[in-house]
Amino acid sequence: MTRKIAIIGASGYTGAELIRLIATHPDMEIAALAADRKAGMKMADVFPHLRHLGLPDLVTLDQIDFGKIDLCFCALPHKTSQEVIRDLPKDLKIVDLSADFRLRDPQAYAQWYGNPHAAVEMQGEAVYGLTEFYRDEIRGARLVAGTGCNAATGQFALRPVISAGVIGLDDIILDMKCAVSGAGRSLKENLLHAELSEGYNAYSVGGTHRHLGEFDQEFSALAGREVKVQFTPHLIPANRGILATTYVSGGAQEIHDTFARAYADEPFLEVLPFGQTPSTHHVRGSNFVHLGVTGDRIAGRAIIIVALDNLTKGSSGQAVQNANLMLGLEETAGLMLAPLFP
Amino acid sequence: MTRKIAIIGASGYTGAELIRLIATHPDMEIAALAADRKAGMKMADVFPHLRHLGLPDLVTLDQIDFGKIDLCFCALPHKTSQEVIRDLPKDLKIVDLSADFRLRDPQAYAQWYGNPHAAVEMQGEAVYGLTEFYRDEIRGARLVAGTGCNAATGQFALRPVISAGVIGLDDIILDMKCAVSGAGRSLKENLLHAELSEGYNAYSVGGTHRHLGEFDQEFSALAGREVKVQFTPHLIPANRGILATTYVSGGAQEIHDTFARAYADEPFLEVLPFGQTPSTHHVRGSNFVHLGVTGDRIAGRAIIIVALDNLTKGSSGQAVQNANLMLGLEETAGLMLAPLFP
Amino acid sequence: MTRKIAIIGASGYTGAELIRLIATHPDMEIAALAADRKAGMKMADVFPHLRHLGLPDLVTLDQIDFGKIDLCFCALPHKTSQEVIRDLPKDLKIVDLSADFRLRDPQAYAQWYGNPHAAVEMQGEAVYGLTEFYRDEIRGARLVAGTGCNAATGQFALRPVISAGVIGLDDIILDMKCAVSGAGRSLKENLLHAELSEGYNAYSVGGTHRHLGEFDQEFSALAGREVKVQFTPHLIPANRGILATTYVSGGAQEIHDTFARAYADEPFLEVLPFGQTPSTHHVRGSNFVHLGVTGDRIAGRAIIIVALDNLTKGSSGQAVQNANLMLGLEETAGLMLAPLFP
Amino acid sequence: MTRKIAIIGASGYTGAELIRLIATHPDMEIAALAADRKAGMKMADVFPHLRHLGLPDLVTLDQIDFGKIDLCFCALPHKTSQEVIRDLPKDLKIVDLSADFRLRDPQAYAQWYGNPHAAVEMQGEAVYGLTEFYRDEIRGARLVAGTGCNAATGQFALRPVISAGVIGLDDIILDMKCAVSGAGRSLKENLLHAELSEGYNAYSVGGTHRHLGEFDQEFSALAGREVKVQFTPHLIPANRGILATTYVSGGAQEIHDTFARAYADEPFLEVLPFGQTPSTHHVRGSNFVHLGVTGDRIAGRAIIIVALDNLTKGSSGQAVQNANLMLGLEETAGLMLAPLFP
Repeated sequence: MTRKIAIIGASGYTGAELIRLIATHPDMEIAALAADRKAGMKMADVFPHLRHLGLPDLVTLDQIDFGKIDLCFCALPHKTSQEVIRDLPKDLKIVDLSADFRLRDPQAYAQWYGNPHAAVEMQGEAVYGLTEFYRDEIRGARLVAGTGCNAATGQFALRPVISAGVIGLDDIILDMKCAVSGAGRSLKENLLHAELSEGYNAYSVGGTHRHLGEFDQEFSALAGREVKVQFTPHLIPANRGILATTYVSGGAQEIHDTFARAYADEPFLEVLPFGQTPSTHHVRGSNFVHLGVTGDRIAGRAIIIVALDNLTKGSSGQAVQNANLMLGLEETAGLMLAPLFP
Repeated sequence: MTRKIAIIGASGYTGAELIRLIATHPDMEIAALAADRKAGMKMADVFPHLRHLGLPDLVTLDQIDFGKIDLCFCALPHKTSQEVIRDLPKDLKIVDLSADFRLRDPQAYAQWYGNPHAAVEMQGEAVYGLTEFYRDEIRGARLVAGTGCNAATGQFALRPVISAGVIGLDDIILDMKCAVSGAGRSLKENLLHAELSEGYNAYSVGGTHRHLGEFDQEFSALAGREVKVQFTPHLIPANRGILATTYVSGGAQEIHDTFARAYADEPFLEVLPFGQTPSTHHVRGSNFVHLGVTGDRIAGRAIIIVALDNLTKGSSGQAVQNANLMLGLEETAGLMLAPLFP
Repeated sequence: MTRKIAIIGASGYTGAELIRLIATHPDMEIAALAADRKAGMKMADVFPHLRHLGLPDLVTLDQIDFGKIDLCFCALPHKTSQEVIRDLPKDLKIVDLSADFRLRDPQAYAQWYGNPHAAVEMQGEAVYGLTEFYRDEIRGARLVAGTGCNAATGQFALRPVISAGVIGLDDIILDMKCAVSGAGRSLKENLLHAELSEGYNAYSVGGTHRHLGEFDQEFSALAGREVKVQFTPHLIPANRGILATTYVSGGAQEIHDTFARAYADEPFLEVLPFGQTPSTHHVRGSNFVHLGVTGDRIAGRAIIIVALDNLTKGSSGQAVQNANLMLGLEETAGLMLAPLFP
Repeated sequence: MTRKIAIIGASGYTGAELIRLIATHPDMEIAALAADRKAGMKMADVFPHLRHLGLPDLVTLDQIDFGKIDLCFCALPHKTSQEVIRDLPKDLKIVDLSADFRLRDPQAYAQWYGNPHAAVEMQGEAVYGLTEFYRDEIRGARLVAGTGCNAATGQFALRPVISAGVIGLDDIILDMKCAVSGAGRSLKENLLHAELSEGYNAYSVGGTHRHLGEFDQEFSALAGREVKVQFTPHLIPANRGILATTYVSGGAQEIHDTFARAYADEPFLEVLPFGQTPSTHHVRGSNFVHLGVTGDRIAGRAIIIVALDNLTKGSSGQAVQNANLMLGLEETAGLMLAPLFP
């Protein structure tokens, strides 16, 4: 039985990516697409690459009959998302792709996002959506909060080795290289082709990026003590991809073994042979994650590198993976699309 | 019953694209991969983006037991292809992606490719693989010759209107913009990132590109008289895509109506509303073709623009489409992947 | 004696390009920079690549003392430009980079730009700024109207052969490929890296692009009869460059000879050997123009291809070239910078 | 009096960049260009962007009359370079752009490059070419060894703060992002546009990159003790640029003050205001270096980021800067070209 899907915020990149994935998903179909400012428009005009799908026109949120919807993806900007979700039917299954329900602690939320949360009571209900580590909770969840794309990448690089206690916790550095679609379909000067193409730079340097809230929450919980990483994102002239170069202290071989064991049965996580390094080229457009571990010439230092596609595994693919679990479907349904190369 | 597929020439881009498509094809599975120079290698080392598929290692051609193969894709360079195919079992279904069996006339072949054909007797047997126009012949064919990527694009832009007699035949100009993967995975200076990125140029100017052989053959046959088009390809700094800007004399509205009728039932051909123009952005990684028609300010002149992905609809997707027909499968099986955008 | 230069509209790409060129110009120095909306800002914050120059801060137009200015470049959007220039001192030498004074006929202006001209009386005074063809008039001009970047490219490809009568006038097609900086530093969705990179498309198809006004005016004047070309611009994923592929009837060798003679003494125009084709790669960041001519396999048809950098020769470099003449300086002063490759 | 310049290895990117810079250098002129494999070719065929310069044709090394040469740039691959330079006239001023004379210790050379040095006796004579730190020695040198592009970038980020003792020496991490022209004009699969565009990856991970030899030599000499940094280069889809993100322990404000003082009088080094971050966009095609310092949320940790153009300041621009000193010219002569943006 095909599940009826609604997408709120369908006119952004994560919305389009959800539709791309659902287009060949065996058990889901798009029943409604909302985008308040573009309501009334045809999807073929908003995203011409989807014109062959015969999608429903965009509507406003209140035009959706949620009684006929099995699951709703919410791909709105943060802050808007919490206000919308607060008012959706209380029995509706929701996967939120925004940042609004990722932090369980209202104070942490207020600190990182600069405003009090509008749906504090739902923060506790939401399950953190990093599928590989919250699988059981997600299966039974009503509201799942998709992780940030950087947050997902960093956690794939660190959770197993923090859990296993095989790396130092006080000198972790995440140097991250992010493609531009992570910034969304927003009209900002630095996102113009003429400004971005052929050059690159760091941003949110020094520990100011909001995804640090997720790292702090998750790594500290895992370690049973406060863990604060250094994290510097960089904007790279490419459309899709995140590459995390992670500097840690620990035995490289033991670190590699730990990942090999932890990810052995994961359908989307590929641990490369020891010493090999992944590339964002090889995961583009897919839900796969490639991870490599290398030792450094300095004894006791290792480099863990993770590559994924920010729009797929870092956002909409992860969201579909969670929705599959919430709907009792095969976890990998619709998600085995091979990467696009070249 | 899943069909067993062999790919000869699996280490190039069209080989990789075939595997990408077959990876989620419901009725095909990869049984053998050959690439003489890379025989013995793992596909994960040749194409790391395919590492999750658990593909068979590359072998030499003679290591393949063709008795167990339902269909063989041949993705070799031209000239090599005819020699290899000549010696394959005579009852093996083959889709050739090279240029070797596209021209039916041995003299035309010799003229455009500069050498006599090594398997002249098979040139007559081969069916021209432009699915939408040779569907019935392909269904019963043993050997199908995939069209060139430029040749396919130009024919989508011109066949129906030549057949319908609604354009002039003596002043057709095809100005084509081609992404770099059309040149294959070959080590040439002008294909380096540092040489290609951020600039563009025409090549094979003045009627010297080999795909003109296909245009001449097909358009003349359609029109019942000699038709010679002007065709200038350009190399564009992008990895996938072909855009054909076609200048013709004729009534723009009548031309649009002709396409609308001709392509109405085609699953992969999207005719845009009159006056809209397609973009290669919106077909990337897919088997879809977008076509737009616009009138010019000069009465009696029209512009037909076609966009497709050279590796998918222009090569490997078309090949799978043909294979589907040859194997009695649904024509669209495995090919409904939505384009990747952004 | 160094000439004092003011730039109005200094916060856009053509403004930045003017400053880049003047930075190493032996006889010019920046005395004032205006940009109303960004007045008060430091240039290092608007254009960090210019931070080493110690430029004056941005001011409003009325803060400039034009009595101390030898020449003013006006790099404003069209329509704004005419209103500003109308009110500037009547003895101030001005090079306008906008479209506002390119068309001599008020009706033609109104037709192409959709509004009556606000300084009709100055339209007659302005000299058309295509240096190579208006050199003498420019030397004595007070107000020079820089040509459009597409208009310049197309005229380099056609003026000498129209003048010489060696091509047909009724079937000229200009298929143009334009890099994105031609669209300016404007926040439009289709100019985002994520929307433009890796794909391309035509725009203003069918004879609607405003630079046709310039082509009509100039080519008709040259030929002594009405000449209407077909012109289709395409947006290419690159930052700088225009490539015009020009389809004409005529003898290719005669056409080449005509260019060779016409451009023999031009310091910035390079005619390639017969049959060679230029690339935008080889003119990037420079004031040079590369032009190639090839015959077609169809007798009596030729292809003329021109490459230039839209921001340099197509706009700010041409403007400096004109300013040099207006100020009695060496025409090539400050403009011999070699192209940047790769 | 114009100095006569020879370039050996003129057919690679650093050779072309030397010519680009010398093209507008007031005191240098190209007297001879050698490239053994391309001897006899015209430069317009090897590098069409230089065709306007009327350069001498390429010759073999032994066709050059070094008696008429004031200074020779050697832009050959390493290992070849030492063999060639060994046999050049002993009184010829030489700037070598290869790696061959950067390491003073023959054993260190053999360790990092895998072969014994062919001109051990000249290793001591060569002066290390990081101009800002070896200015006096370079002025009197006969043979200067240009630094590696990564090595230059890392040293701009670290030398003053190591010298001043304001950072820890045991936990320095250099995460570097390198554009592709650093790999030269070599035909390698991973340098193809189709393989590099739209993705990125680390390489030489774990302390295996040869530029570490330079870091070890220079930083240890500065500190008076062994200093070993962690250094991970990444290949980014851009043609020019290096960005070094440097993680250190120390007081961020003190670090910034140290740079501000150290670089106050340097013509090419721009220290950004505290907390600002540089971008490779803003140095492209120029000899300028932008440097920013930011504190981390973790007390006592700072991030130093440096951007430069690998072909200019990282190689050929630095070489011209050194040549200026060796020839008694103004250090900045020919090098004040403003960056190209966009």
